[in-house]
Amino acid sequence: MTLPSRQALVPFVSVENMMRLVLHVGIEQMMVELTHAIEADFRRWPAFDKTPRVASHSDIGVIELMPTSDGQHYGFKYVNGHPGNMRQGLQAVTAFGVLADVATGYPLLLSEMTILTALRTAATSAMAAKWLAPRDARVMAMIGNGAQAEFQALAMKTVCGIEEVRLYDIDPAATRKCAANLAGRGLRVVSCDTAEQAVLGAQIITTCTADKQYATILTDNLVGGGVHINAVGGDCPGKTELHRDILLRAGIFVEYPPQTRIEGEIQALDPDHPVTELWQVIAGEAPGRTDAGQVTLFDSFGFAIEDFSALRHILKRLEGTEFFLELDMIADPDDPRDLFGMIIRSEGQ
Amino acid sequence: MTLPSRQALVPFVSVENMMRLVLHVGIEQMMVELTHAIEADFRRWPAFDKTPRVASHSDIGVIELMPTSDGQHYGFKYVNGHPGNMRQGLQAVTAFGVLADVATGYPLLLSEMTILTALRTAATSAMAAKWLAPRDARVMAMIGNGAQAEFQALAMKTVCGIEEVRLYDIDPAATRKCAANLAGRGLRVVSCDTAEQAVLGAQIITTCTADKQYATILTDNLVGGGVHINAVGGDCPGKTELHRDILLRAGIFVEYPPQTRIEGEIQALDPDHPVTELWQVIAGEAPGRTDAGQVTLFDSFGFAIEDFSALRHILKRLEGTEFFLELDMIADPDDPRDLFGMIIRSEGQ
Repeated sequence: MTLPSRQALVPFVSVENMMRLVLHVGIEQMMVELTHAIEADFRRWPAFDKTPRVASHSDIGVIELMPTSDGQHYGFKYVNGHPGNMRQGLQAVTAFGVLADVATGYPLLLSEMTILTALRTAATSAMAAKWLAPRDARVMAMIGNGAQAEFQALAMKTVCGIEEVRLYDIDPAATRKCAANLAGRGLRVVSCDTAEQAVLGAQIITTCTADKQYATILTDNLVGGGVHINAVGGDCPGKTELHRDILLRAGIFVEYPPQTRIEGEIQALDPDHPVTELWQVIAGEAPGRTDAGQVTLFDSFGFAIEDFSALRHILKRLEGTEFFLELDMIADPDDPRDLFGMIIRSEGQ
Repeated sequence: MTLPSRQALVPFVSVENMMRLVLHVGIEQMMVELTHAIEADFRRWPAFDKTPRVASHSDIGVIELMPTSDGQHYGFKYVNGHPGNMRQGLQAVTAFGVLADVATGYPLLLSEMTILTALRTAATSAMAAKWLAPRDARVMAMIGNGAQAEFQALAMKTVCGIEEVRLYDIDPAATRKCAANLAGRGLRVVSCDTAEQAVLGAQIITTCTADKQYATILTDNLVGGGVHINAVGGDCPGKTELHRDILLRAGIFVEYPPQTRIEGEIQALDPDHPVTELWQVIAGEAPGRTDAGQVTLFDSFGFAIEDFSALRHILKRLEGTEFFLELDMIADPDDPRDLFGMIIRSEGQ
């Protein structure tokens, strides 16, 4: 059988290889690099094709495709959200993604994205906090200590200079897991018994809980002035984390309004409630935080461009490493019109 | 490093393994099976989630995602269309696809779909011809002798009883390639110098050309009564193969009207021109061919449900074979909330 040509082979990054690559680069270093990659793409936001993700909902979860393109590369992510999976010992959110060449339509990279999504989500949160949080923020409250919590804490440390993280989860076992994982990583870790206790003295409040319901993780009286709220968990219709009164007095920053208004915290507000697109702050087209006493909110759901930036960065970072496998994914007959001949000639080879 | 659990491993069918599987089953037998699988799904058409494909267009091509679900399984195909690729020795159309479990959102299968798309396209054409072509059809004209031609000819032979195929292509080299590949496969193969000559005595006319332009492969005077036209090549905006006058006197059958009206041959007609959905004919809810002298047209662009049927059939056919590789695509920590711990514990293992 003739060997497939170079273009017919697609580098594949497995979960194991993604872990190796991340450890090779360093988790914190990788999040710094991803923050820069995402920031560079947010700065050229108008260059991207933007469509809301294509969701297929069922009673117990959702499967989504999130495509985007900058005219040179095309990327998409497959991601599911099944909160009930955890009861079966499965991940609530798993993902993989593909980067392709717009000029030929050929895939350039297939990668696991469960780990990569955790990294890029934390990198995006840290990027937003860098632009929106009070300059002197040193303490973060982390409400929800699940799969995303440690990534958030380390990204905020390494990108924004957070020194103390105050953990709270309705399940104390999650807090114990998170505190153990963060031990010895340069953060003061304070485990708290209540959300009230966690937000004490925090300039950044990150909420990242997974239940698909209208929850009020943060009530209005918990949030004082001069705070940045990083709301990661409200990311589908019917799923929010913040009390409406907080939203009404906050400066609200979002990724992509058509989708945030349906899936984000602001689904609780009027459809014309003013919001600022985060990319405009980064590109210098809109103000970020306007005064030290302001409450800022990054109402994040995770947009396709962040995955695109992450996939491009991984492809670059793979160069010269062995952290991938080459998959024979693309049929490559010697004569492109002779697909049939390729099959029959492979017989007996 | 702990081995990933069974559900974290996704069977992957490479191009090489797809060729092995197809040869193991037999190309014609595989197309018969795919015809049955697609027909069974067309019969329960209302059970499927249907959305137009999500297309990302550039000056020189398109990249599309085609998702669908029946509530049990979810499938999508990534497919590109770059007619200019052939000049660089690349495939104009390449594809891969994923089948997933709606209950958990976990992928069940990743497969090459360049070969599988060729097979399912021919199987869908043969299924439509079985329901729409004159009963005694024995001769097919095959206009356009590119990558899809042999699959069309063999599917029409094995599913519809076609005995003679009359080949025409603007490039005689394509016709020679096609005739050579079909030699000894139980069809009378007649190579023709003009489209006029090819349609002589044909009861089925298949058009399958690849240029992205309004072309008139078939003019009105070429098409007599009692003919079934299987229009495979008109499959994006600005790309058609048939003269408008043929459309005006034909009974038109389509897969999914919202998409066919934009991408199919009928983009040339009024948006309310009557068409019949093919699934309704198969489900007994609409008549197919109404008289022997009628011109029927299957205006096909290739719908997500056909890919879904094909992926499900391949997954079933893989059982008990070695024609796949297991990919570690899904992160699978022992504690689903401990993604971070999985990464750091993998260090040095």
